[in-house]
Amino acid sequence: MQYAALGPGKRLRPALVYACALALAGDTAATQCHQAAAALECIHAYSLVHDDLPAMDDDDLRRGRPTCHIQFDEATAILAGDALQCQAFELLVQSDLAPPLKVQVIGELANAAGARGMVAGQAIDLAAVDHTLTLTQLEKMHRLKTGALIVASARVGALIGGAEASQLSAITRYAEAIGLAFQVQDDILDVTSDTQVLGKTQGADAARNKPTYVSLLGLDGAQAKAAELHQQASLALQDLRAGAENISTDVLQQLADFIVKRRH
Amino acid sequence: MQYAALGPGKRLRPALVYACALALAGDTAATQCHQAAAALECIHAYSLVHDDLPAMDDDDLRRGRPTCHIQFDEATAILAGDALQCQAFELLVQSDLAPPLKVQVIGELANAAGARGMVAGQAIDLAAVDHTLTLTQLEKMHRLKTGALIVASARVGALIGGAEASQLSAITRYAEAIGLAFQVQDDILDVTSDTQVLGKTQGADAARNKPTYVSLLGLDGAQAKAAELHQQASLALQDLRAGAENISTDVLQQLADFIVKRRH
Repeated sequence: MQYAALGPGKRLRPALVYACALALAGDTAATQCHQAAAALECIHAYSLVHDDLPAMDDDDLRRGRPTCHIQFDEATAILAGDALQCQAFELLVQSDLAPPLKVQVIGELANAAGARGMVAGQAIDLAAVDHTLTLTQLEKMHRLKTGALIVASARVGALIGGAEASQLSAITRYAEAIGLAFQVQDDILDVTSDTQVLGKTQGADAARNKPTYVSLLGLDGAQAKAAELHQQASLALQDLRAGAENISTDVLQQLADFIVKRRH
Repeated sequence: MQYAALGPGKRLRPALVYACALALAGDTAATQCHQAAAALECIHAYSLVHDDLPAMDDDDLRRGRPTCHIQFDEATAILAGDALQCQAFELLVQSDLAPPLKVQVIGELANAAGARGMVAGQAIDLAAVDHTLTLTQLEKMHRLKTGALIVASARVGALIGGAEASQLSAITRYAEAIGLAFQVQDDILDVTSDTQVLGKTQGADAARNKPTYVSLLGLDGAQAKAAELHQQASLALQDLRAGAENISTDVLQQLADFIVKRRH
Protein backbone atom coordinates (compact mmCIF):
# COMPACT_ATOMS: atom_id res chain seq x y z
CA MET A 1 0.00 0.00 0.00
CA GLN A 2 2.83 2.39 0.83
CA TYR A 3 4.75 1.48 -2.32
CA ALA A 4 1.68 2.18 -4.45
CA ALA A 5 0.40 5.30 -2.72
CA LEU A 6 3.53 7.09 -1.51
CA GLY A 7 5.86 6.72 -4.49
CA PRO A 8 6.59 9.52 -6.93
CA GLY A 9 3.50 10.97 -8.59
CA LYS A 10 1.89 14.22 -9.62
CA ARG A 11 -0.68 14.22 -6.78
CA LEU A 12 -3.09 15.98 -9.12
CA ARG A 13 -6.23 14.83 -7.26
CA PRO A 14 -5.09 15.96 -3.78
CA ALA A 15 -3.88 19.23 -5.33
CA LEU A 16 -7.36 19.75 -6.81
CA VAL A 17 -9.08 19.09 -3.49
CA TYR A 18 -6.90 21.68 -1.76
CA ALA A 19 -7.02 24.18 -4.64
CA CYS A 20 -10.84 24.16 -4.85
CA ALA A 21 -11.30 24.59 -1.09
CA LEU A 22 -8.66 27.32 -1.13
CA ALA A 23 -10.30 29.15 -4.04
CA LEU A 24 -13.66 29.33 -2.30
CA ALA A 25 -12.79 29.70 1.35
CA GLY A 26 -9.08 30.32 1.81
CA ASP A 27 -6.46 28.63 3.98
CA THR A 28 -8.78 27.57 6.80
CA ALA A 29 -10.87 25.42 4.49
CA ALA A 30 -7.76 23.95 2.93
CA THR A 31 -6.55 22.68 6.31
CA GLN A 32 -9.78 20.67 6.57
CA CYS A 33 -8.95 18.82 3.36
CA HIS A 34 -6.12 16.53 4.46
CA GLN A 35 -8.07 13.28 4.84
CA ALA A 36 -10.17 13.93 1.74
CA ALA A 37 -7.07 14.73 -0.31
CA ALA A 38 -5.38 11.55 0.91
CA ALA A 39 -8.57 9.54 0.24
CA LEU A 40 -8.69 10.67 -3.38
CA GLU A 41 -5.04 9.68 -3.84
CA CYS A 42 -5.70 6.25 -2.24
CA ILE A 43 -8.51 5.58 -4.74
CA HIS A 44 -6.28 6.71 -7.59
CA ALA A 45 -3.35 4.59 -6.37
CA TYR A 46 -5.56 1.50 -5.99
CA SER A 47 -6.88 1.95 -9.53
CA LEU A 48 -3.34 2.12 -10.93
CA VAL A 49 -2.27 -1.03 -9.07
CA HIS A 50 -5.24 -3.01 -10.38
CA ASP A 51 -5.03 -1.51 -13.91
CA ASP A 52 -1.40 -2.62 -14.17
CA LEU A 53 -2.18 -6.28 -13.30
CA PRO A 54 -1.40 -8.95 -15.92
CA ALA A 55 -5.12 -9.64 -16.46
CA MET A 56 -5.74 -5.95 -17.09
CA ASP A 57 -3.21 -3.67 -18.85
CA ASP A 58 -0.22 -5.88 -17.93
CA ASP A 59 2.21 -3.02 -17.32
CA ASP A 60 5.66 -3.51 -15.79
CA LEU A 61 6.56 0.13 -15.25
CA ARG A 62 4.69 2.89 -13.41
CA ARG A 63 5.97 6.24 -12.21
CA GLY A 64 9.50 5.14 -13.15
CA ARG A 65 9.45 2.05 -10.94
CA PRO A 66 8.37 -1.59 -11.28
CA THR A 67 4.59 -1.89 -10.92
CA CYS A 68 3.28 -3.30 -7.66
CA HIS A 69 2.81 -6.89 -8.90
CA ILE A 70 6.34 -6.88 -10.35
CA GLN A 71 7.91 -5.45 -7.18
CA PHE A 72 5.95 -7.84 -4.92
CA ASP A 73 3.58 -10.38 -6.47
CA GLU A 74 0.14 -10.48 -8.04
CA ALA A 75 -1.76 -11.49 -4.90
CA THR A 76 -0.09 -8.71 -2.92
CA ALA A 77 -0.98 -6.20 -5.62
CA ILE A 78 -4.63 -7.27 -5.65
CA LEU A 79 -4.82 -7.03 -1.84
CA ALA A 80 -2.92 -3.73 -1.65
CA GLY A 81 -5.37 -2.23 -4.14
CA ASP A 82 -8.36 -3.62 -2.26
CA ALA A 83 -7.07 -2.22 1.02
CA LEU A 84 -6.24 1.18 -0.50
CA GLN A 85 -9.83 1.54 -1.70
CA CYS A 86 -11.08 0.77 1.78
CA GLN A 87 -8.47 3.09 3.31
CA ALA A 88 -9.96 5.98 1.37
CA PHE A 89 -13.29 5.55 3.14
CA GLU A 90 -11.60 5.04 6.51
CA LEU A 91 -9.76 8.33 6.03
CA LEU A 92 -12.96 10.19 5.24
CA VAL A 93 -14.67 8.74 8.30
CA GLN A 94 -11.70 9.94 10.40
CA SER A 95 -11.87 13.50 9.08
CA ASP A 96 -13.12 16.36 11.24
CA LEU A 97 -15.87 17.38 8.83
CA ALA A 98 -19.39 17.72 10.23
CA PRO A 99 -21.34 14.46 9.72
CA PRO A 100 -23.70 15.72 6.95
CA LEU A 101 -20.77 17.14 4.95
CA LYS A 102 -18.76 14.00 5.63
CA VAL A 103 -21.58 11.85 4.23
CA GLN A 104 -21.78 14.09 1.17
CA VAL A 105 -18.02 13.76 0.57
CA ILE A 106 -18.13 9.98 1.02
CA GLY A 107 -20.98 9.91 -1.49
CA GLU A 108 -18.99 11.90 -4.06
CA LEU A 109 -16.08 9.47 -3.72
CA ALA A 110 -18.21 6.31 -3.85
CA ASN A 111 -20.18 7.51 -6.88
CA ALA A 112 -17.05 8.48 -8.77
CA ALA A 113 -15.05 5.34 -8.02
CA GLY A 114 -17.64 2.64 -8.57
CA ALA A 115 -19.68 0.86 -11.20
CA ARG A 116 -21.13 4.07 -12.62
CA GLY A 117 -17.76 5.84 -12.59
CA MET A 118 -14.13 4.81 -12.68
CA VAL A 119 -14.70 1.04 -12.79
CA ALA A 120 -17.18 1.42 -15.66
CA GLY A 121 -14.55 3.41 -17.56
CA GLN A 122 -11.96 0.72 -16.99
CA ALA A 123 -14.41 -1.95 -18.22
CA ILE A 124 -15.10 0.03 -21.41
CA ASP A 125 -11.35 0.56 -21.85
CA LEU A 126 -10.62 -3.18 -21.65
CA ALA A 127 -13.48 -3.98 -24.03
CA ALA A 128 -12.11 -1.41 -26.49
CA VAL A 129 -8.78 -3.16 -27.14
CA ASP A 130 -8.62 -4.07 -30.85
CA HIS A 131 -11.95 -2.27 -31.47
CA THR A 132 -12.61 1.03 -33.14
CA LEU A 133 -14.17 3.67 -30.91
CA THR A 134 -15.77 6.85 -32.16
CA LEU A 135 -14.60 10.12 -30.62
CA THR A 136 -17.82 10.19 -28.56
CA GLN A 137 -17.20 6.68 -27.22
CA LEU A 138 -13.56 7.47 -26.44
CA GLU A 139 -14.62 10.59 -24.57
CA LYS A 140 -17.25 8.70 -22.58
CA MET A 141 -14.63 6.13 -21.59
CA HIS A 142 -12.22 8.80 -20.36
CA ARG A 143 -14.94 10.82 -18.60
CA LEU A 144 -15.59 7.68 -16.54
CA LYS A 145 -12.14 6.13 -16.23
CA THR A 146 -10.16 9.20 -15.17
CA GLY A 147 -12.60 12.12 -15.40
CA ALA A 148 -15.00 10.96 -12.69
CA LEU A 149 -12.34 10.90 -9.98
CA ILE A 150 -10.82 14.22 -11.08
CA VAL A 151 -14.28 15.81 -11.01
CA ALA A 152 -14.92 14.25 -7.59
CA SER A 153 -11.63 15.69 -6.30
CA ALA A 154 -12.66 19.18 -7.34
CA ARG A 155 -16.21 18.82 -6.04
CA VAL A 156 -15.01 17.45 -2.69
CA GLY A 157 -12.71 20.45 -2.27
CA ALA A 158 -15.53 22.77 -3.30
CA LEU A 159 -17.95 21.17 -0.83
CA ILE A 160 -15.42 21.50 1.99
CA GLY A 161 -15.00 25.12 0.90
CA GLY A 162 -18.75 25.61 1.33
CA ALA A 163 -19.61 25.96 -2.38
CA GLU A 164 -23.04 27.22 -3.40
CA ALA A 165 -24.85 25.39 -6.21
CA SER A 166 -23.64 27.73 -8.98
CA GLN A 167 -20.05 27.54 -7.71
CA LEU A 168 -20.21 23.75 -7.55
CA SER A 169 -21.48 23.75 -11.11
CA ALA A 170 -18.64 25.99 -12.37
CA ILE A 171 -16.04 23.89 -10.57
CA THR A 172 -17.55 20.71 -12.01
CA ARG A 173 -17.29 22.15 -15.55
CA TYR A 174 -13.69 23.23 -14.86
CA ALA A 175 -12.78 19.75 -13.62
CA GLU A 176 -14.53 17.97 -16.50
CA ALA A 177 -12.48 20.05 -18.92
CA ILE A 178 -9.11 19.52 -17.23
CA GLY A 179 -9.90 15.82 -16.66
CA LEU A 180 -10.38 15.28 -20.36
CA ALA A 181 -7.46 17.57 -21.22
CA PHE A 182 -5.29 15.44 -18.96
CA GLN A 183 -6.19 12.36 -20.98
CA VAL A 184 -5.69 14.05 -24.35
CA GLN A 185 -2.24 15.19 -23.17
CA ASP A 186 -1.54 11.62 -21.96
CA ASP A 187 -2.27 10.35 -25.46
CA ILE A 188 -0.04 13.05 -26.96
CA LEU A 189 2.80 12.18 -24.57
CA ASP A 190 2.38 8.47 -25.34
CA VAL A 191 3.65 9.22 -28.86
CA THR A 192 5.90 12.28 -28.33
CA SER A 193 7.72 11.51 -25.06
CA ASP A 194 10.08 8.69 -24.19
CA THR A 195 9.81 5.98 -21.54
CA GLN A 196 12.37 7.51 -19.19
CA VAL A 197 10.74 10.94 -18.98
CA LEU A 198 7.26 9.40 -18.93
CA GLY A 199 7.95 6.95 -16.08
CA LYS A 200 5.81 4.37 -17.87
CA THR A 201 6.24 2.44 -21.09
CA GLN A 202 6.15 4.84 -24.06
CA GLY A 203 3.87 3.77 -26.91
CA ALA A 204 2.09 1.27 -24.67
CA ASP A 205 -1.41 2.28 -25.72
CA ALA A 206 -0.60 2.22 -29.43
CA ALA A 207 1.08 -1.18 -29.00
CA ARG A 208 -2.10 -2.57 -27.44
CA ASN A 209 -4.22 -1.22 -30.30
CA LYS A 210 -6.06 1.04 -27.88
CA PRO A 211 -7.88 3.92 -29.49
CA THR A 212 -6.40 7.31 -28.48
CA TYR A 213 -7.05 10.96 -29.29
CA VAL A 214 -3.95 10.90 -31.47
CA SER A 215 -5.11 7.83 -33.41
CA LEU A 216 -8.55 9.41 -33.97
CA LEU A 217 -7.60 13.08 -34.48
CA GLY A 218 -3.93 12.95 -35.44
CA LEU A 219 -1.26 14.73 -33.40
CA ASP A 220 -2.26 18.26 -34.52
CA GLY A 221 -5.95 17.50 -33.92
CA ALA A 222 -5.21 16.17 -30.42
CA GLN A 223 -3.15 19.26 -29.60
CA ALA A 224 -6.00 21.49 -30.79
CA LYS A 225 -8.42 19.48 -28.64
CA ALA A 226 -6.20 19.95 -25.56
CA ALA A 227 -6.06 23.70 -26.20
CA GLU A 228 -9.86 23.85 -26.58
CA LEU A 229 -10.38 22.02 -23.27
CA HIS A 230 -7.87 24.31 -21.56
CA GLN A 231 -9.92 27.25 -22.82
CA GLN A 232 -13.14 25.68 -21.46
CA ALA A 233 -11.50 25.27 -18.07
CA SER A 234 -10.42 28.92 -18.04
CA LEU A 235 -13.95 30.05 -18.95
CA ALA A 236 -15.42 27.98 -16.10
CA LEU A 237 -13.00 29.70 -13.70
CA GLN A 238 -14.12 33.04 -15.09
CA ASP A 239 -17.73 32.08 -14.26
CA LEU A 240 -16.61 31.05 -10.79
CA ARG A 241 -14.98 34.45 -10.17
CA ALA A 242 -17.95 36.37 -11.61
CA GLY A 243 -20.27 35.35 -8.78
CA ALA A 244 -18.32 36.55 -5.76
CA GLU A 245 -15.52 38.93 -4.81
CA ASN A 246 -13.31 36.81 -2.55
CA ILE A 247 -12.65 34.01 -4.97
CA SER A 248 -9.08 33.49 -6.16
CA THR A 249 -8.66 30.99 -8.98
CA ASP A 250 -4.91 31.43 -9.53
CA VAL A 251 -3.94 27.97 -8.33
CA LEU A 252 -6.76 26.34 -10.30
CA GLN A 253 -5.59 28.18 -13.43
CA GLN A 254 -2.02 27.02 -12.80
CA LEU A 255 -3.25 23.42 -12.51
CA ALA A 256 -5.07 23.73 -15.84
CA ASP A 257 -1.93 25.21 -17.43
CA PHE A 258 0.23 22.43 -15.99
CA ILE A 259 -2.02 19.72 -17.39
CA VAL A 260 -1.64 20.76 -21.03
CA LYS A 261 2.01 21.82 -20.73
CA ARG A 262 3.38 18.85 -18.80
CA ARG A 263 6.00 16.59 -20.37
CA HIS A 264 5.41 13.48 -18.21
CA MET B 1 -21.40 -7.85 -9.88
CA GLN B 2 -24.87 -9.43 -10.00
CA TYR B 3 -23.46 -12.89 -10.63
CA ALA B 4 -21.18 -12.56 -7.60
CA ALA B 5 -23.56 -10.86 -5.19
CA LEU B 6 -26.99 -12.27 -6.07
CA GLY B 7 -26.21 -15.96 -6.58
CA PRO B 8 -27.06 -18.63 -4.02
CA GLY B 9 -25.52 -18.03 -0.61
CA LYS B 10 -26.30 -18.17 3.08
CA ARG B 11 -26.60 -14.37 3.51
CA LEU B 12 -25.22 -14.75 7.02
CA ARG B 13 -23.97 -11.19 7.25
CA PRO B 14 -27.25 -9.52 6.20
CA ALA B 15 -29.11 -11.90 8.52
CA LEU B 16 -26.89 -10.78 11.38
CA VAL B 17 -27.48 -7.11 10.66
CA TYR B 18 -31.25 -7.62 10.73
CA ALA B 19 -31.21 -9.99 13.70
CA CYS B 20 -29.17 -7.65 15.90
CA ALA B 21 -31.34 -4.62 15.12
CA LEU B 22 -34.44 -6.77 15.68
CA ALA B 23 -33.18 -8.11 19.00
CA LEU B 24 -32.59 -4.63 20.40
CA ALA B 25 -35.34 -2.54 18.87
CA GLY B 26 -37.86 -4.73 17.06
CA ASP B 27 -39.27 -4.61 13.53
CA THR B 28 -39.02 -0.85 13.04
CA ALA B 29 -35.25 -0.88 13.48
CA ALA B 30 -34.95 -3.90 11.19
CA THR B 31 -36.63 -2.01 8.34
CA GLN B 32 -33.85 0.59 8.57
CA CYS B 33 -31.22 -2.08 7.89
CA HIS B 34 -31.77 -2.80 4.19
CA GLN B 35 -28.87 -0.80 2.75
CA ALA B 36 -26.50 -1.80 5.55
CA ALA B 37 -27.40 -5.48 5.14
CA ALA B 38 -26.84 -5.24 1.38
CA ALA B 39 -23.58 -3.36 1.93
CA LEU B 40 -22.21 -6.11 4.17
CA GLU B 41 -23.10 -8.71 1.53
CA CYS B 42 -21.43 -6.63 -1.21
CA ILE B 43 -18.17 -6.54 0.77
CA HIS B 44 -18.42 -10.28 1.40
CA ALA B 45 -19.17 -11.00 -2.27
CA TYR B 46 -16.24 -8.84 -3.45
CA SER B 47 -13.89 -10.65 -1.08
CA LEU B 48 -14.97 -14.04 -2.44
CA VAL B 49 -14.49 -12.94 -6.06
CA HIS B 50 -10.97 -11.68 -5.37
CA ASP B 51 -10.07 -14.63 -3.10
CA ASP B 52 -10.99 -17.05 -5.88
CA LEU B 53 -8.69 -15.41 -8.46
CA PRO B 54 -5.85 -17.50 -9.94
CA ALA B 55 -3.22 -15.36 -8.14
CA MET B 56 -5.00 -15.93 -4.82
CA ASP B 57 -6.76 -19.21 -3.92
CA ASP B 58 -7.30 -20.18 -7.59
CA ASP B 59 -10.76 -21.72 -7.05
CA ASP B 60 -13.02 -22.77 -9.93
CA LEU B 61 -16.18 -23.45 -7.94
CA ARG B 62 -18.10 -21.24 -5.51
CA ARG B 63 -21.62 -21.68 -4.19
CA GLY B 64 -22.13 -24.54 -6.65
CA ARG B 65 -21.30 -22.44 -9.71
CA PRO B 66 -18.18 -21.50 -11.67
CA THR B 67 -16.30 -18.70 -9.89
CA CYS B 68 -16.56 -15.22 -11.39
CA HIS B 69 -13.27 -15.34 -13.32
CA ILE B 70 -14.21 -18.74 -14.79
CA GLN B 71 -17.72 -17.62 -15.77
CA PHE B 72 -16.44 -14.33 -17.24
CA ASP B 73 -12.72 -13.57 -17.23
CA GLU B 74 -10.07 -12.45 -14.80
CA ALA B 75 -10.22 -8.75 -15.63
CA THR B 76 -13.99 -8.76 -15.22
CA ALA B 77 -13.68 -10.52 -11.88
CA ILE B 78 -11.14 -7.99 -10.61
CA LEU B 79 -13.34 -5.08 -11.70
CA ALA B 80 -16.58 -6.64 -10.39
CA GLY B 81 -14.94 -7.07 -7.00
CA ASP B 82 -13.60 -3.53 -7.02
CA ALA B 83 -17.02 -2.13 -7.90
CA LEU B 84 -18.80 -4.27 -5.29
CA GLN B 85 -16.58 -2.86 -2.57
CA CYS B 86 -17.40 0.66 -3.70
CA GLN B 87 -21.10 -0.25 -4.02
CA ALA B 88 -21.16 -1.11 -0.32
CA PHE B 89 -20.21 2.45 0.60
CA GLU B 90 -22.62 3.90 -1.97
CA LEU B 91 -25.44 1.88 -0.39
CA LEU B 92 -24.61 3.14 3.09
CA VAL B 93 -24.54 6.73 1.85
CA GLN B 94 -28.00 6.18 0.31
CA SER B 95 -29.50 4.80 3.53
CA ASP B 96 -31.99 6.85 5.56
CA LEU B 97 -29.92 6.73 8.75
CA ALA B 98 -29.19 10.03 10.49
CA PRO B 99 -25.79 11.40 9.35
CA PRO B 100 -23.87 10.74 12.63
CA LEU B 101 -25.13 7.11 12.75
CA LYS B 102 -24.45 6.73 9.04
CA VAL B 103 -20.84 7.83 9.55
CA GLN B 104 -20.50 5.39 12.45
CA VAL B 105 -21.81 2.52 10.29
CA ILE B 106 -19.52 3.45 7.38
CA GLY B 107 -16.63 3.47 9.86
CA GLU B 108 -17.48 -0.01 11.15
CA LEU B 109 -17.53 -1.33 7.58
CA ALA B 110 -14.33 0.40 6.50
CA ASN B 111 -12.42 -0.71 9.60
CA ALA B 112 -13.54 -4.31 9.22
CA ALA B 113 -12.90 -4.63 5.50
CA GLY B 114 -9.52 -2.97 5.16
CA ALA B 115 -5.85 -3.34 5.95
CA ARG B 116 -6.42 -3.87 9.66
CA GLY B 117 -9.28 -6.31 9.07
CA MET B 118 -10.37 -8.61 6.26
CA VAL B 119 -7.55 -7.80 3.84
CA ALA B 120 -4.94 -8.34 6.57
CA GLY B 121 -6.49 -11.76 7.25
CA GLN B 122 -6.33 -12.68 3.59
CA ALA B 123 -2.67 -11.59 3.44
CA ILE B 124 -1.83 -13.77 6.47
CA ASP B 125 -3.79 -16.64 4.89
CA LEU B 126 -1.81 -16.44 1.65
CA ALA B 127 1.49 -16.22 3.52
CA ALA B 128 0.50 -19.31 5.56
CA VAL B 129 0.36 -21.72 2.61
CA ASP B 130 2.99 -24.43 3.18
CA HIS B 131 3.81 -22.98 6.62
CA THR B 132 2.92 -24.24 10.07
CA LEU B 133 0.71 -21.91 12.08
CA THR B 134 0.10 -22.22 15.80
CA LEU B 135 -3.50 -22.29 16.98
CA THR B 136 -3.10 -18.67 18.12
CA GLN B 137 -1.86 -17.60 14.69
CA LEU B 138 -4.65 -19.53 12.93
CA GLU B 139 -7.23 -17.89 15.17
CA LYS B 140 -5.79 -14.43 14.53
CA MET B 141 -5.96 -15.05 10.79
CA HIS B 142 -9.61 -16.10 10.95
CA ARG B 143 -10.57 -13.28 13.33
CA LEU B 144 -9.35 -10.90 10.63
CA LYS B 145 -10.23 -12.73 7.43
CA THR B 146 -13.84 -13.66 8.19
CA GLY B 147 -14.41 -12.63 11.81
CA ALA B 148 -13.98 -8.89 11.33
CA LEU B 149 -16.80 -8.63 8.79
CA ILE B 150 -19.12 -10.90 10.80
CA VAL B 151 -18.48 -8.78 13.90
CA ALA B 152 -19.06 -5.62 11.86
CA SER B 153 -22.39 -7.04 10.61
CA ALA B 154 -23.57 -7.60 14.15
CA ARG B 155 -22.31 -4.25 15.40
CA VAL B 156 -23.90 -2.37 12.51
CA GLY B 157 -27.25 -4.00 13.28
CA ALA B 158 -26.80 -3.21 16.95
CA LEU B 159 -25.92 0.42 16.24
CA ILE B 160 -28.99 0.81 14.04
CA GLY B 161 -30.96 -0.78 16.88
CA GLY B 162 -29.66 1.94 19.21
CA ALA B 163 -27.37 -0.28 21.28
CA GLU B 164 -25.91 1.04 24.54
CA ALA B 165 -22.21 0.39 25.22
CA SER B 166 -22.80 -2.78 27.29
CA GLN B 167 -25.18 -4.17 24.65
CA LEU B 168 -22.69 -3.42 21.87
CA SER B 169 -20.05 -5.22 23.90
CA ALA B 170 -22.23 -8.33 24.40
CA ILE B 171 -23.16 -8.42 20.71
CA THR B 172 -19.50 -8.05 19.75
CA ARG B 173 -18.58 -11.05 21.95
CA TYR B 174 -21.47 -13.05 20.47
CA ALA B 175 -20.34 -12.24 16.92
CA GLU B 176 -16.67 -12.98 17.64
CA ALA B 177 -17.69 -16.43 18.89
CA ILE B 178 -19.97 -17.30 15.98
CA GLY B 179 -17.49 -15.86 13.49
CA LEU B 180 -14.78 -18.21 14.70
CA ALA B 181 -17.27 -21.09 15.05
CA PHE B 182 -18.22 -20.54 11.42
CA GLN B 183 -14.61 -21.01 10.38
CA VAL B 184 -14.06 -24.07 12.57
CA GLN B 185 -17.19 -25.61 11.04
CA ASP B 186 -15.88 -24.68 7.56
CA ASP B 187 -12.70 -26.62 8.30
CA ILE B 188 -14.75 -29.58 9.57
CA LEU B 189 -16.95 -29.55 6.45
CA ASP B 190 -13.86 -29.33 4.23
CA VAL B 191 -12.99 -32.88 5.33
CA THR B 192 -16.43 -34.38 6.15
CA SER B 193 -18.69 -33.05 3.39
CA ASP B 194 -18.51 -33.56 -0.35
CA THR B 195 -18.09 -31.05 -3.17
CA GLN B 196 -21.70 -31.22 -4.33
CA VAL B 197 -23.25 -30.46 -0.94
CA LEU B 198 -20.55 -27.91 -0.13
CA GLY B 199 -20.88 -25.95 -3.36
CA LYS B 200 -17.11 -25.49 -3.41
CA THR B 201 -14.24 -27.87 -3.94
CA GLN B 202 -14.08 -30.33 -1.02
CA GLY B 203 -10.63 -30.83 0.49
CA ALA B 204 -9.36 -27.65 -1.16
CA ASP B 205 -7.67 -26.25 1.95
CA ALA B 206 -5.96 -29.52 2.80
CA ALA B 207 -4.80 -29.86 -0.83
CA ARG B 208 -3.16 -26.43 -0.63
CA ASN B 209 -1.38 -27.34 2.61
CA LYS B 210 -3.30 -24.64 4.44
CA PRO B 211 -3.38 -25.03 8.21
CA THR B 212 -6.92 -25.72 9.48
CA TYR B 213 -8.55 -26.40 12.85
CA VAL B 214 -8.84 -30.04 11.83
CA SER B 215 -5.14 -30.29 10.92
CA LEU B 216 -4.14 -28.66 14.23
CA LEU B 217 -6.73 -30.17 16.61
CA GLY B 218 -7.94 -33.28 14.80
CA LEU B 219 -11.60 -33.78 13.84
CA ASP B 220 -12.78 -34.43 17.43
CA GLY B 221 -10.78 -31.47 18.74
CA ALA B 222 -12.24 -29.19 16.08
CA GLN B 223 -15.78 -30.34 16.90
CA ALA B 224 -15.15 -29.67 20.60
CA LYS B 225 -13.84 -26.21 19.69
CA ALA B 226 -17.00 -25.45 17.68
CA ALA B 227 -19.17 -26.53 20.62
CA GLU B 228 -17.16 -24.34 23.00
CA LEU B 229 -17.56 -21.30 20.75
CA HIS B 230 -21.29 -22.00 20.41
CA GLN B 231 -21.50 -21.99 24.21
CA GLN B 232 -19.62 -18.66 24.37
CA ALA B 233 -22.10 -17.16 21.92
CA SER B 234 -25.05 -18.35 24.00
CA LEU B 235 -23.51 -16.86 27.15
CA ALA B 236 -23.03 -13.51 25.41
CA LEU B 237 -26.72 -13.55 24.46
CA GLN B 238 -27.59 -14.30 28.08
CA ASP B 239 -25.62 -11.18 29.09
CA LEU B 240 -27.47 -9.20 26.43
CA ARG B 241 -30.88 -10.28 27.80
CA ALA B 242 -29.83 -9.67 31.43
CA GLY B 243 -29.60 -5.91 30.97
CA ALA B 244 -33.08 -5.13 29.65
CA GLU B 245 -36.59 -6.58 29.47
CA ASN B 246 -37.58 -6.07 25.85
CA ILE B 247 -34.69 -7.91 24.27
CA SER B 248 -35.45 -11.06 22.31
CA THR B 249 -32.41 -13.07 21.25
CA ASP B 250 -34.26 -16.01 19.65
CA VAL B 251 -33.14 -15.28 16.10
CA LEU B 252 -29.55 -14.66 17.20
CA GLN B 253 -29.56 -17.98 19.03
CA GLN B 254 -30.93 -19.71 15.93
CA LEU B 255 -28.14 -18.19 13.86
CA ALA B 256 -25.55 -19.52 16.34
CA ASP B 257 -27.18 -22.96 16.22
CA PHE B 258 -27.25 -22.93 12.42
CA ILE B 259 -23.55 -22.10 12.19
CA VAL B 260 -22.37 -25.19 14.06
CA LYS B 261 -25.04 -27.54 12.67
CA ARG B 262 -24.86 -26.57 9.00
CA ARG B 263 -23.79 -29.14 6.43
CA HIS B 264 -22.71 -26.72 3.69
